[in-house]
Amino acid sequence: MTGKKLGAQSAALAHPPSLAGWGNVAGKKEGEGPLAAAFDYIDADDTFGEVTWEKSESTMQKQALALALNRAGQSAAGLDWLFAGDLLNQCIGSSYAARGQQVPFFGLYGACSTMGEGLALAAMLLDGNFGERAGVVVSSHFCTAERQYRTPLEYGAQRAPTTQWTVTAAGAAILAREGPGPYLTHVTAGKVTDLGVTDTNNMGAAMAPAAHDTLMAHFRDTGRSPGDYDQIFIGDLGTLGSELLLELLRRDGVELTNHTDCGAIIFDLNKQDVHCGGSGCGCCAAVLTGHILEGLRAGRWRNILFCPTGALHSPVSAFQGESVPGICHAVAIAAER
Amino acid sequence: MTGKKLGAQSAALAHPPSLAGWGNVAGKKEGEGPLAAAFDYIDADDTFGEVTWEKSESTMQKQALALALNRAGQSAAGLDWLFAGDLLNQCIGSSYAARGQQVPFFGLYGACSTMGEGLALAAMLLDGNFGERAGVVVSSHFCTAERQYRTPLEYGAQRAPTTQWTVTAAGAAILAREGPGPYLTHVTAGKVTDLGVTDTNNMGAAMAPAAHDTLMAHFRDTGRSPGDYDQIFIGDLGTLGSELLLELLRRDGVELTNHTDCGAIIFDLNKQDVHCGGSGCGCCAAVLTGHILEGLRAGRWRNILFCPTGALHSPVSAFQGESVPGICHAVAIAAER
Repeated sequence: MTGKKLGAQSAALAHPPSLAGWGNVAGKKEGEGPLAAAFDYIDADDTFGEVTWEKSESTMQKQALALALNRAGQSAAGLDWLFAGDLLNQCIGSSYAARGQQVPFFGLYGACSTMGEGLALAAMLLDGNFGERAGVVVSSHFCTAERQYRTPLEYGAQRAPTTQWTVTAAGAAILAREGPGPYLTHVTAGKVTDLGVTDTNNMGAAMAPAAHDTLMAHFRDTGRSPGDYDQIFIGDLGTLGSELLLELLRRDGVELTNHTDCGAIIFDLNKQDVHCGGSGCGCCAAVLTGHILEGLRAGRWRNILFCPTGALHSPVSAFQGESVPGICHAVAIAAER
Repeated sequence: MTGKKLGAQSAALAHPPSLAGWGNVAGKKEGEGPLAAAFDYIDADDTFGEVTWEKSESTMQKQALALALNRAGQSAAGLDWLFAGDLLNQCIGSSYAARGQQVPFFGLYGACSTMGEGLALAAMLLDGNFGERAGVVVSSHFCTAERQYRTPLEYGAQRAPTTQWTVTAAGAAILAREGPGPYLTHVTAGKVTDLGVTDTNNMGAAMAPAAHDTLMAHFRDTGRSPGDYDQIFIGDLGTLGSELLLELLRRDGVELTNHTDCGAIIFDLNKQDVHCGGSGCGCCAAVLTGHILEGLRAGRWRNILFCPTGALHSPVSAFQGESVPGICHAVAIAAER
């Protein structure tokens, strides 16, 4: 018995895989925020002991994966597949982290949606009887992202009020065909959606239409409604993008009252000077692999929907006058099968 | 009945999906080479009607996918999933090609191995009963790759004798659960392999260890040997990398006499001034979606192994003194189930 495609974009897992282990590491600023207690390791100076920020990011992925494997009682060689991604050109954060690890590797590029993309693919492979265990690991680092997407840190460029702050964090999760849960029950894969936003300092606005599109597809494909979830976690539209998402849903007659934006809870928005909130692959991944999964295991929620969003542009596409396409992948996670 | 994991890195598909359609587009230089007749469309000036090379590459993906869909008798909305990737920073060739298309989208980063990665994932999803049809599309463009990885074309930089020439091409394939074949029967996913090559002008040498590792894993996991295949297509080590691969295999007691490098056949190495041959995601993808699949359908071969290789580095990793990790994904394709 295996899963099946539901509607245009979703799938139901016949034998939902268990989240068997998870782990994360975070930077100094994240460690000063409200979710500090949910991080497994907080680095004192964001270097993670390395001499370049890119090497730091790779080390973060290695550490997060090792923590998740340890909690699952596995080694990397015990994984059938590893999915990984990050925001760096050619995804070097992931490739160098996986180098030499004895595990079949699938590199992903889904920008900040990558944790959702990886969980969706890993769950479908296991449910299709292709292996017993699969891992997903993603990362972002404030310093690698700033110099790649914007300006070198040393310039001290001023930030627009609509910007989000790229989170320094890596998160990893191990899925297993059998285990005590929580369980990944449904996936909805996103379409590349673009309503024409060209302001690269306003990623929340650019990604909100993708979140709207995927949420509507999820409800249509599965026959579920927002009320079927204790909480719907979006990652990461920030405060402005979240308002736009709620407005887009309202136009379709959907009121979202149980919604949390991962980017809005990882920092203290009043005190930490991050403008619209956190962003980056590592933001929602770190929130998932601490706050959310621990909450599910502790009985705080019984059913949640995790919906990471990504902006699929680059500095080159922006220079060429292009608007910013977005994508959002959703996975439903339940405490019980 | 669904597939199963075989050994550490492979899977056998219980009901091998059919390659239901394929298509490709190529640039001027590729159209002057020995495989010209196997390309569906050859552009006269490599612009594909666009004003920037990056937009050209995106258009190439759209065209290749449309050709493959047309041959499969489908529209994009008839696909359950689309996998896509390219070499550009943040994979903008793929994201902008998929923008607005009504299809759930999984972005991949596997460098030049992406066609193999996409085919492996698409085949496992369909075999796991997740949908009826999935597409894979990848691209590379000489002009986008040169300015991103090396120097702007206008510099006229001299090329080292060990270099390969990034192919301007896009290739797309549609997999379907049912159809007349050829059929994708086995996949072997690669590990990130690095023997310490630091010369970014010698990608063949950097990727040969990954090809060696994946081929040995494939033979070990499946119980097959090179003689079980009419032809083993590697993509793309070029002439120098191919020699190194054969030497590495020989040390393990494996003689590969039925081996073709996609990068060595897409150009006339004596006349087209490409040094060690072609490379880029589009090289082996264009060879697969013309020369190889047409040959299988015409009865020229009955069983082939397609093994795209990728170098998972970036200019930043090279500047930071890193060596070049490689990866190789293999898929077995047979004329009959």
